[in-house]
Amino acid sequence: MKSNGQRLWQSLMEMAKIGATEKGGNTRLALTDLDVAGRQLLIQWAKEIDLSIYYDAVGNLFLRREGTAAVDPIVMGSHLDTQPKGGRFDGIYGVLSGLEVIRCLHEQKLQTHHPIELVVWMNEEGARFTPAMMGSAVFTNVFSLAQVLATTDKEGVSVASELKRTQQIGDLPFARPFTAYYEAHIEQGPVLENSQIEIGVVTGGQAILWLDAKTSGKAAHAGTTPMQMRKDSMIATANMMAQLEAMVLEQFPEGLITFGEISVPNSSRNTIPATVQWSIDLRHPNDDLLLKMEQETQKIIDALAEKRGVSVDVSRHWHNPATYFDTQCVATVQAAVTELGFSHQHIVSGAGHDAINLAKHCPTTMIFIPCEGGLSHNEAENISAAQAEQGADVLLNAILKADQLRALAKVS
Amino acid sequence: MKSNGQRLWQSLMEMAKIGATEKGGNTRLALTDLDVAGRQLLIQWAKEIDLSIYYDAVGNLFLRREGTAAVDPIVMGSHLDTQPKGGRFDGIYGVLSGLEVIRCLHEQKLQTHHPIELVVWMNEEGARFTPAMMGSAVFTNVFSLAQVLATTDKEGVSVASELKRTQQIGDLPFARPFTAYYEAHIEQGPVLENSQIEIGVVTGGQAILWLDAKTSGKAAHAGTTPMQMRKDSMIATANMMAQLEAMVLEQFPEGLITFGEISVPNSSRNTIPATVQWSIDLRHPNDDLLLKMEQETQKIIDALAEKRGVSVDVSRHWHNPATYFDTQCVATVQAAVTELGFSHQHIVSGAGHDAINLAKHCPTTMIFIPCEGGLSHNEAENISAAQAEQGADVLLNAILKADQLRALAKVS
Repeated sequence: MKSNGQRLWQSLMEMAKIGATEKGGNTRLALTDLDVAGRQLLIQWAKEIDLSIYYDAVGNLFLRREGTAAVDPIVMGSHLDTQPKGGRFDGIYGVLSGLEVIRCLHEQKLQTHHPIELVVWMNEEGARFTPAMMGSAVFTNVFSLAQVLATTDKEGVSVASELKRTQQIGDLPFARPFTAYYEAHIEQGPVLENSQIEIGVVTGGQAILWLDAKTSGKAAHAGTTPMQMRKDSMIATANMMAQLEAMVLEQFPEGLITFGEISVPNSSRNTIPATVQWSIDLRHPNDDLLLKMEQETQKIIDALAEKRGVSVDVSRHWHNPATYFDTQCVATVQAAVTELGFSHQHIVSGAGHDAINLAKHCPTTMIFIPCEGGLSHNEAENISAAQAEQGADVLLNAILKADQLRALAKVS
Repeated sequence: MKSNGQRLWQSLMEMAKIGATEKGGNTRLALTDLDVAGRQLLIQWAKEIDLSIYYDAVGNLFLRREGTAAVDPIVMGSHLDTQPKGGRFDGIYGVLSGLEVIRCLHEQKLQTHHPIELVVWMNEEGARFTPAMMGSAVFTNVFSLAQVLATTDKEGVSVASELKRTQQIGDLPFARPFTAYYEAHIEQGPVLENSQIEIGVVTGGQAILWLDAKTSGKAAHAGTTPMQMRKDSMIATANMMAQLEAMVLEQFPEGLITFGEISVPNSSRNTIPATVQWSIDLRHPNDDLLLKMEQETQKIIDALAEKRGVSVDVSRHWHNPATYFDTQCVATVQAAVTELGFSHQHIVSGAGHDAINLAKHCPTTMIFIPCEGGLSHNEAENISAAQAEQGADVLLNAILKADQLRALAKVS
């Protein structure tokens, strides 16, 4: 079965008019009037195909098409909120490709066994209210409702007051059972485009470890202190970074290491830095190998600290274990891609998604399509209409397979 | 001939009471009431030994003892102003050891051929009014008087108004001829202490080159960008720093390299840095070798930039050529140290001093004594009374040799 690529692209472009930015991007921060306008456009489209409309108490929006059986729904979705000057596709593609799937079912008058739902999670981006993935986190009991409702933006406006103002509070229960959850998304990375692959079959999410490191040496005059008498925290740190990258490249082919932040307190051009504060972001698809990376990181830091007469405090800032998506869900995507004849590869999500929360709750997977230059969170974020259509085709056929599979599973 | 170490130490401790800080340091910022009080104490001591008192138009203070001939004076000196929460000896030692020399001449009723002057340069530290070494720079025509008079502190108060308020404007001409200039100083580095050497015979000042570097790569998501597809400006910079240090250690035994400042604009822990801004401080006693260091630095940066797909802009921020002190002046110090039987070594000044300006004007040299832990610009700055006495002994005997030498030179 095929989706209607032209209709999907038109919907994407129509949605992109709401909060459009000068350079072709979108700004629809969570729970602003523009965010609500985007949701209202979606609701208008949903009404045209007779979907029922529900909210829960944290503003997650559910659009439902009934199935033939009284079973738990198969759910598709993502988010419509964006980063400030973000792109037109991050999140939005997952929602509107899901809409396209239901439009196809409606058009074909195809009755599914399961109810099919389309969800728009509240505040995935975390740009106005932090942290990110708020709505799906409350739904899956990762965050408490009270904690999220009390969260305020920079102007002191709370999530609770914005939900009330925009009339997006409903009574659908949290953590309701789902038969399965599927989220289509742009890759937000360069892997698929670089390999000229059409579809990424997503098998899970990376384990992430954020470390805070502080190298302490001795401040001294840049002109009066011979090289041999220095305890230079900056050069020590530079050598650590260089060796840590080499270690990851040599020992962890799937690992990632990033030093995103660095600062020298009270720095002066002609003073040997006493202290360097730096961040280490370690990622790996496998939990055990991430912990092994952490151990190797500590070994390298300890050895260089001793060699260079500095000390380094390393502390864990945040640890998020790996997510392993449901093998049956992944198999439905794999089967759909194979039947459709698209080039594909297994891929692990490097970014956070609502699906990472949902995977704790129900059988879950994701479908990635390439995006131009791997660019995201940027007005220049881009995909082609053909890529959008291919992803929707895969989502449509995977959902149909899941409906059959789960129907059979329940019967057997 | 020997100085009176006890008298010198008492004077140092008496001076240290003016602007004393809680932790045993000194705060006497240039042209403040405390700075003037320090100078007034010195003037009181100068009057006790019949010195004449003069100012020039930028507040440099000269205390003069006449010689037997109408020739240009031999001048000793340094500064009495300090850093905020600075030490008790940086500069002050040079002034008070000079005072001790003249006290000895006075006590012994020793008539020198040359007039002997003690100078207190205005604002050496540059802490209140920047840049540093202001008074000696105007005296030697490195800075214009008008430019310096118009300089203001953070409160908008000008040098001109503070000179007027404190009544420190005289009419002694700038750039008057000196037969020689001698400045005793604490080393402000760890070399002498570390080698257990009593006196540093200073042969000149390092050449200094300050470079601004900006590494430009590509910002990308720390989770979605494989290591092989990154243009990571931070890891590129870290590798450059590591290789640059190795290059200096291997090829330039007397060279120094320091990366005092580093920043990542708009940094985020989970974003590969697009840009790293960093400073490079290169120093070498020899001008040609400093330029060679600069070339080797550029080579390493270029090679790594190409290898890692980043670009690096390197620009010169400041260049100060090496200072080579007068060989005859250095010889008088060398001879004095040898006669006195102190352990000694040749050393090059790594910090800025008024003597660096004076070297452009007249035969000049410096005498270093060790300081505790090489510490300076710090309340914990420290020397022993014995070290102070040794330096004054050297200064006294070097001045006497210079007086004889120059006297003979003029006769012949």
